Amino acid sequence: MHFRATLAYDGTEFQGFQSQSAGARTVQGALEAALGRLAKGGRVAVHAAGRTDAGVHAVGQVACFELPRTLDPAALARALNALLPADVRVLDAAETPAGFHARKSAQSKLYRYVLDSGPVQLPTRRLFAGHVPFPLDHGAVADAAALYPGRRDFAALASTGGSAKTTTRTVFRSEARWERPSTGTETLLFETEADGFLRKMVRSMVGGLVAAGRGAVTVAELRHALDARDRRAWPPPAAARGLTLVRVEYDAVIR
Amino acid sequence: MHFRATLAYDGTEFQGFQSQSAGARTVQGALEAALGRLAKGGRVAVHAAGRTDAGVHAVGQVACFELPRTLDPAALARALNALLPADVRVLDAAETPAGFHARKSAQSKLYRYVLDSGPVQLPTRRLFAGHVPFPLDHGAVADAAALYPGRRDFAALASTGGSAKTTTRTVFRSEARWERPSTGTETLLFETEADGFLRKMVRSMVGGLVAAGRGAVTVAELRHALDARDRRAWPPPAAARGLTLVRVEYDAVIR
Repeated sequence: MHFRATLAYDGTEFQGFQSQSAGARTVQGALEAALGRLAKGGRVAVHAAGRTDAGVHAVGQVACFELPRTLDPAALARALNALLPADVRVLDAAETPAGFHARKSAQSKLYRYVLDSGPVQLPTRRLFAGHVPFPLDHGAVADAAALYPGRRDFAALASTGGSAKTTTRTVFRSEARWERPSTGTETLLFETEADGFLRKMVRSMVGGLVAAGRGAVTVAELRHALDARDRRAWPPPAAARGLTLVRVEYDAVIR
Repeated sequence: MHFRATLAYDGTEFQGFQSQSAGARTVQGALEAALGRLAKGGRVAVHAAGRTDAGVHAVGQVACFELPRTLDPAALARALNALLPADVRVLDAAETPAGFHARKSAQSKLYRYVLDSGPVQLPTRRLFAGHVPFPLDHGAVADAAALYPGRRDFAALASTGGSAKTTTRTVFRSEARWERPSTGTETLLFETEADGFLRKMVRSMVGGLVAAGRGAVTVAELRHALDARDRRAWPPPAAARGLTLVRVEYDAVIR
C-alpha cells in the first residue's frame, strides 16, 4: 500500500530532513527506521515534499512511502508515533494512489519565518524564532516583501549546493505582519507560498527583509540584485531556527 | 548597590530556580556564578520572587541581590547576559532601595499555563505546553476556574514539601481562554494572579480544570475537596513544562 503522512517536527536536534553525511540524525532516518520495523526489517524509502535544513521545523511536512502490507491509515499513524522519537510526530496518514509523490505532486508549499527584533530574545523562543538585536522599519520590510511575488528567476536567492535544475519559481504569497510578544520586543511573522523553493530561499527572502528593515540596503538595491540574479549582492540568509514548513498543497485529484 | 533584575528563562534544562540537591543545575546557581564573576569572586546571594520548579519557565521572574561595586543597571544587564548561559537572560535591571526583597516585597504574581488538547501534540510545543490527548469541555473548565478567586485556604492544592507557614492565599484572577494553534488541536490558556502561590499550586489548579474538563470529577466535587482542604481528593497537578511565571507586581513605592 502507498501512504502519505503529514509530519510535524522540532528541527533543533535534526541535521535536516535528509543529509548527505553518513550517521547524521535526520527526520528521514527516524521515519525510515520506524517504517522498517513495521515492514519487519525491510527497507522503506521515504520521499518528502521539502528537504528542510538542519534546525528548520515543520508542522505540515508531507512524506510518502510504500509498505508491503495492508494497514489502516489511523493505525499506521499510531504505530509510527509509538516508534518515533518525541521530536517527530505523525499528525495524519492516508492511503494514496501509487503515482503520488510528496514532492513532485505538490502544487505549493507554505513556509513561515518568525523573527524577534529587540535587545534580548526570550530564551523560551530561541529555538523557534530568529533574532536581531535592532529595530526593523515596517515600511521597508513590507516594500521588500512586495519584491517576491510572481514568476521569476530567483538565482540571487539560491544557495550554492542546491540541486535544482532551474532557479525559476512562482511565488504566490509573501506577507509580513507584526506581533508584540513582550515588552521591548517586536516579532516579524513572514509567510510565503510558492510552487517550490530553492535551497535556503525562504531564509534568503528573510535576509532581504532584515537588510532592508535595518537600512543596510535599499529596496531598489534588492530589486536590482534580484533582477541581475546576483547572489553576491544579496544579504545573508536568516538563521534556520526561525523557519517552519507549514503546509503542502496538492490537487484534490492527485495524478 | 542593591539591584533587581527581571529574568526570562527556558526551564527545560534547569532543576528549578533553586534546589536542595547539591550539584543541581539551577537558575539561581547560574545567576550567582555570573554575579560572582562581576564581584571578583565574592559570593553574591540571589533571592527570587518565585521558586519555580524544574521545567517551569519564566518571562518575568524578578531576582534581587547586592553587589559590592557601583554599576550602571543597563551595563549590569549586558554584563550578566554575556556571562549567563543562553537559556537564561536578564531582560532588565534596576537599582533598588536596600529594603527591597524580590519575594517579600511582591504584591502579586501572574502565572500562565498552556495546555494542548488533541490526539497529537506538535513537537515544537512539547517543551512549552502541557498535553492531554482528549477533548476538554469548555463550560466545565470555565466553571472550575471560577472556583479559585478570593481569599481562602488552598491546602487541597498544596504539594507536600512546600515551606509555606500558611496555606491561605488570595487569588485575584483565574481565567481560561482557548486558541486553535493547528487542525485537530485546541489550546487552553489559563492565567492566574494571586498574592502568592503554594508549591505546585498553579499546576494543581490546572489539574482541577483538566479533571473537570474531561468529566473525571464534577465542579461540585472539586468545590467540596477545596472546602474540605482535602489534598487526596484533588486531581494530580499538570506537567511543569506548560507553566510560565509571567510577571511579578510591586508597589510603586517599595518599602
